[in-house]
Amino acid sequence: MNRTYWKLVRRPVGDIAPGDLELVTEALPELAEGQFLLQVIYLSLDPTNRIWMSDMEQYMPPVALGAPMRAGVCGRVIASRKAGVSEGQIMAGLGEWADHIVSDGSFMSPLPQLPGVPLAATYGTLALVGPTAYFGLMDIGQPKAGETLVVSAAAGGVGQIVGQIGKIKGCKVIGIAGGRAKCDYVVNELGFDAAIDYKAEDVGAALDRLAPEGVDINFEQVGGSIMVEVLKRMRIFGRVPLCGLISSYNDVTPTEPPGFWTMMLMRRLTVRGFIVTDFAPRFGESGAALAGWMMGGQLKTRQDIRPGLENALETVKELYSGGNFGKLLIEVSAP
Amino acid sequence: MNRTYWKLVRRPVGDIAPGDLELVTEALPELAEGQFLLQVIYLSLDPTNRIWMSDMEQYMPPVALGAPMRAGVCGRVIASRKAGVSEGQIMAGLGEWADHIVSDGSFMSPLPQLPGVPLAATYGTLALVGPTAYFGLMDIGQPKAGETLVVSAAAGGVGQIVGQIGKIKGCKVIGIAGGRAKCDYVVNELGFDAAIDYKAEDVGAALDRLAPEGVDINFEQVGGSIMVEVLKRMRIFGRVPLCGLISSYNDVTPTEPPGFWTMMLMRRLTVRGFIVTDFAPRFGESGAALAGWMMGGQLKTRQDIRPGLENALETVKELYSGGNFGKLLIEVSAP
Repeated sequence: MNRTYWKLVRRPVGDIAPGDLELVTEALPELAEGQFLLQVIYLSLDPTNRIWMSDMEQYMPPVALGAPMRAGVCGRVIASRKAGVSEGQIMAGLGEWADHIVSDGSFMSPLPQLPGVPLAATYGTLALVGPTAYFGLMDIGQPKAGETLVVSAAAGGVGQIVGQIGKIKGCKVIGIAGGRAKCDYVVNELGFDAAIDYKAEDVGAALDRLAPEGVDINFEQVGGSIMVEVLKRMRIFGRVPLCGLISSYNDVTPTEPPGFWTMMLMRRLTVRGFIVTDFAPRFGESGAALAGWMMGGQLKTRQDIRPGLENALETVKELYSGGNFGKLLIEVSAP
Repeated sequence: MNRTYWKLVRRPVGDIAPGDLELVTEALPELAEGQFLLQVIYLSLDPTNRIWMSDMEQYMPPVALGAPMRAGVCGRVIASRKAGVSEGQIMAGLGEWADHIVSDGSFMSPLPQLPGVPLAATYGTLALVGPTAYFGLMDIGQPKAGETLVVSAAAGGVGQIVGQIGKIKGCKVIGIAGGRAKCDYVVNELGFDAAIDYKAEDVGAALDRLAPEGVDINFEQVGGSIMVEVLKRMRIFGRVPLCGLISSYNDVTPTEPPGFWTMMLMRRLTVRGFIVTDFAPRFGESGAALAGWMMGGQLKTRQDIRPGLENALETVKELYSGGNFGKLLIEVSAP
């Protein structure tokens, strides 16, 4: 039996280019004792993929040249020589851009299936982006009723969840997204109070109009000029959960925005960078809260599902141009 | 009876210049019911004085043009028409660059006198800089035994206390100060593990030598290029209590250091600006801890006491060139 996967051939310079990764087919090795074989159903494409491809400063080792590209995956166990893992089980965790994965269970755990909820929604919400949204907003953002929360990349995987948790916690929520469709979606479908279309509007002017009181929490995913406009409007004791800086990941020579050091001092801001795995010991807490909100109808999420492992390389690039609408997944095999 | 005080005449541009403030003598008004008259003993000169003189973004209203210059003061009640405040009592709080102050008690509280400790040391430690050091380090820095703490302006009012609390908490403490005498003092007298003379040494190279493991806590008071060198060496999950940015207060056109946004994200740093008054409800906690350490001999502090209210304007400028050695006080009248 063969498996097909994407191999990192060279580190992208600027935008990801054809040839940076190559699609390879190889014979699958026999399962050793303690291993299982996962047939990948969904491959999660995330902004951090571009970081892992590079050798910039990052929070895990970069993917080695010649190694399979790393990714979040979810799949079905089709053979197992590992105690406690049985055929047919759905597992999710850290894997590869591949149609099959041999795993010893490291960084993999069973994915609970919620009644009446499609697997893509369960995986796309509970597995990775949900905990990111939950811990970033709850632990660092510390939302209080009546406060104003701004979330960039609002219609993306994390952003849509952040905004809805903000509403559950009684905040005024303003999303920033690219294009009318995304803005309408977060307001009309998800219940955000307002949205700013950064492709058509002056973000600073829109913030002045929509949040003349200023911003208590900036859930930051984008960086660059949009971040600068939000930061300028932070209120005293404001919090900035720093989740991502997607606007700079393709930069050959990154230009750091100014530090706002004087403002951070005078307004007593808190800025804290985080990675979801920092909170791994508490994933039970986030899973229970997110599943409860989903089952109760307070949390809706949208997935942007694209077919075919062979399209992963072209598809991941859309994250950096805002081409995805919801959590971006590749459907590698039928759920 | 007359009083003499410094009046803010114009806002300094760049360095404080003669004529920005004027020494004025006026007749004291009669005490109204609920007021008391304080004879000022010590006037506290602090980096924030320069902020209050300006109209830059700040955490209190700036001093109004034509108004007495604001300052921390400590003095003796020499007349009282306020219930609960009696002649001879020592009070400390927010006052003015003046020899006498009429107060209704707002932002003033009795200063406990520690047996065997001179008033200048009690005031210079317990009243303002002590709580700043205590809450900034304990609440934001969250020192753990074995961690590496760097404190800039190490021989100044706040810095000397930060470093000693760091040692009490089991940290490796590295101070940054200007000149051999200050560096020797924090190491030999206060027990810091090491000190870097930023006037004679390459701060980055010295940090690489003294803290090859990196920095867990950067207690930041200075900003500019020294801050940049420390930030570059922050460890994962590092904390930056942002207490001051004295190197920029005289800037006509402040240049913000880069934000280190990518580093804050990848290393999951926490940066939090604070002002000591944010912690006012908990001053009892800091007072008890600091007094205990002082009485127990674990906390020594040095004051740099200069005579004469008339010298306040020339003296305050030394803060920005590093001319003070310890907490800078003007002795306005005999203690």
